Amino acid sequence: MDQTDHLSTIFAALADPTRRAIIARLAGGAATVGELAAPFDLSLPAISKHIKVLQRAGLVEQGRRAQWRPCALRPEPLRDVQGWLDRYQEVLGERYDRLEAYLRELQDDGKEQHDADDTAG
Amino acid sequence: MDQTDHLSTIFAALADPTRRAIIARLAGGAATVGELAAPFDLSLPAISKHIKVLQRAGLVEQGRRAQWRPCALRPEPLRDVQGWLDRYQEVLGERYDRLEAYLRELQDDGKEQHDADDTAG
Repeated sequence: MDQTDHLSTIFAALADPTRRAIIARLAGGAATVGELAAPFDLSLPAISKHIKVLQRAGLVEQGRRAQWRPCALRPEPLRDVQGWLDRYQEVLGERYDRLEAYLRELQDDGKEQHDADDTAG
Repeated sequence: MDQTDHLSTIFAALADPTRRAIIARLAGGAATVGELAAPFDLSLPAISKHIKVLQRAGLVEQGRRAQWRPCALRPEPLRDVQGWLDRYQEVLGERYDRLEAYLRELQDDGKEQHDADDTAG
């Protein structure tokens, strides 16, 4: 599968609120299909269909051997999305500004710590 | 439009290599539909259809008054995707490590500068 089609598959998998909610749930730890279905007003087959879409995109893997077959989040496709988005950091000025402000804050903290060390010495 | 549906519309718009190529082109500056169509083996109506999907997702705006009606990239939807992805920075360990290494580098540079100032003073 080339990278372009792979990205399209990932973006298509993310284009659904239920599937994004499943990802949010799995970010907190592995879960069975039943556990994933619980918060939604959906049948187990409907949830299973969403999980299959996430599996095809590589976002979810399901254990094969355990009897309860837990689903787990795989981060690689999210990294691929981040990698695609990184090309547009210049366009995403606001975030860049936020990151810069954060870096400045950290540097100021470091400098203050260093000044405090100088005084103590 | 609630945020959830809005995000689904954005992700669906990004789930196509031609539309992502249009975004990449527009990140370099505004372009007419004809200019956007040129690198692709696609008809003007086919490109126009892709542009309409991008417009519905808020990713592209098209000038109304100019005769050549240039298309321009709007960054807000990409920021929304970044905002969604930011929730998973802990999961995206690698990127987090990269950012940390970058922060450390910057702090070391700052410290070196500070040490140099101390020596000079």
